[in-house]
Parts: sequence; structure tokens; C-alpha cells
Amino acid sequence: MSKKVEEAIRKVVDFPKKGIIFRDITTALKRPEIFKEIIDFFVENFKNTDFDYIVAIESRGFFLAAPIAYLMNKGLIIIRKPGKLPAETISAEYSLEYGTDKLEIHVDSIEPGKKVIIMDDLVATGGTLEASIELVKNLGGIVKKVAFLIELKDLKAREKIDPSIEMVSMLKF
Amino acid sequence: MSKKVEEAIRKVVDFPKKGIIFRDITTALKRPEIFKEIIDFFVENFKNTDFDYIVAIESRGFFLAAPIAYLMNKGLIIIRKPGKLPAETISAEYSLEYGTDKLEIHVDSIEPGKKVIIMDDLVATGGTLEASIELVKNLGGIVKKVAFLIELKDLKAREKIDPSIEMVSMLKF
Repeated sequence: MSKKVEEAIRKVVDFPKKGIIFRDITTALKRPEIFKEIIDFFVENFKNTDFDYIVAIESRGFFLAAPIAYLMNKGLIIIRKPGKLPAETISAEYSLEYGTDKLEIHVDSIEPGKKVIIMDDLVATGGTLEASIELVKNLGGIVKKVAFLIELKDLKAREKIDPSIEMVSMLKF
Repeated sequence: MSKKVEEAIRKVVDFPKKGIIFRDITTALKRPEIFKEIIDFFVENFKNTDFDYIVAIESRGFFLAAPIAYLMNKGLIIIRKPGKLPAETISAEYSLEYGTDKLEIHVDSIEPGKKVIIMDDLVATGGTLEASIELVKNLGGIVKKVAFLIELKDLKAREKIDPSIEMVSMLKF
């Protein structure tokens, strides 16, 4: 675990609500040497992985996935909140503390048989991750890895997903 | 204007509402050679510009700004919709067809005197652009350039902003 990267991420107390400590990555993105260390960690981790696309989860996943897609010469695919993607989509639901929300992907984004790595900045309970895996699978895609800058270990997302999918987390709290 | 990039952007008719032709960049992000041509265009354009930070406007601006920040060794700063940034923010309002909306930036993101380039995927009427420039200026930052993958020329955003700020658009429609 990189101490420098860990220290560059700001802890905001009581956001988005009382009792939550929010890990604010904007203070890390702002420092080129830290951002480079983060991106290079994933490029190194992915370099021997056979994959076609990086799939980025809205919206902090975009910061990580976009440079990696560029550097590794891979296509960038986007998973978004409902109503944001303009063409035909499929959706998957996930649970929130109260009620449910949805994620969407374009139906023509991932061709059957294509191999992908799903990326987000943070995995907590794994709800959006499960929905994202479901979207990729429903299009016929194969999830090789899921990757995060931050994993909140105590929330046990790892236990919710198919054990054959490798989970990569740069920082674990 | 790059014909290849232009053709890679999908036109979606009647999104988000009747009569609008939405320029869908997801079909361009998905193709590594097209994404590379886009990013390299801006890196080339910015290489003789004296600046400290790339400022990305939520959320399609993130795809362009993140790789450029990485490649040019610059800090990445984020402007977001209200309630998304966890620490102390300032905000600026802009007009929509009906009513107004807001954008926010962290108060400690840009130090006075720092030079920035603001990026988004598309500029139309320039409302979010004007608000973004206001946010940077209110923090004491200096806007050197504003840059877009797509400029909708007929909506005349160029006329609304300070003529001393250079506007860079890869594609003009």
C-alpha cells in the first residue's frame, strides 16, 4: 500500500451524512506525482491481463479508466446513472440503504466474447459493482478483473462477486 | 477537422428531447485509435501553453482532462454539480432553458495566481463554461484556454467569454 497516495487522499468527516468518513480523491488527482503513481500501479497490474475494454463506472471511475485506456491502447466503455446515455441501453438495479437505484450501459457497447476490466474509484458494499458485472455479462462480455483505488474491506464486497473474477485494490481500509 | 474522429461520434436524434441531435462521444471513446487522436490533438495544442492545472467539467470533461493531465504532468481539478464535492466549495449559477443550475469547485483546489485550462467535451450556449470561468476567477486562478472536443458554433459561446481567453475546439459543427 502506498503511504504517499494514502496520505494524499483527504478524509472528510460526516459526508455525505453524519458518521461517514468520505475518502476525497480530488486532493490526490491534483498532484501530478500522486496521480501518476495511481495510474502506473494499474497499468503495471493489467499489463499481463488479456482484455479488450476498460469499463468505467460513473463518475469518479472515469478519472482512472480514461488515462489507463489511453496508455494501454484499449477501448473505454461507460456505465452511467439512468437517463445519461443517449442511445439504446440495458439497465441493472442495485440496493441503496433505502430503496434501489439503477445503472445503464449502451446495448452495443460490448460485443459478445469481449474481455473487460471494470474500474471505479472505491468499492464499499459492492452494490454498484454487482450491477456493473451484471450489465457486462448481459451483453455477453467477460469480466476479467475489477479494480479500485480504494477498497473498504469491512464491507465485504469481495464476498459478493464471482470468485473467478480477480479484485485489484490499490489501497485497503 | 478530423474526419475520422467526426465519423466516430454517433448522432442520436431527439435526445435528450425532441428536435435535439445529441453528439454521443461514447462510440469514439470505445475505439483506441480515435481516443488517442483526440487526446494527442489537445496535448499538441497545449504543449507551448504555460499552465498548472487542467480543470475538468462534470462529467464528460473527465474523459479528456484525465489522460491529458497524466501525459502533461499537470494537476487535475474538478468542477461538479451541487452536492458532489465533499469539502468546502464555492458555487456559480448558470441559466438553463427553464430556471438555473449550479456548478461547484473546492475552495482550496486552485491557489491564487495558478494558470489553468478548462476542458469539457462540448460547448453549446456556453452557460456551464461561463460558470466555470467564474469559479476559477473567484479562487484567483487565471484561465489561459478553454478546450472542447466539440463546439456548436451557431450557439455563439465564443462571444460570451473574455476575448483574451483562447478557445480551442477540435470539431466545429
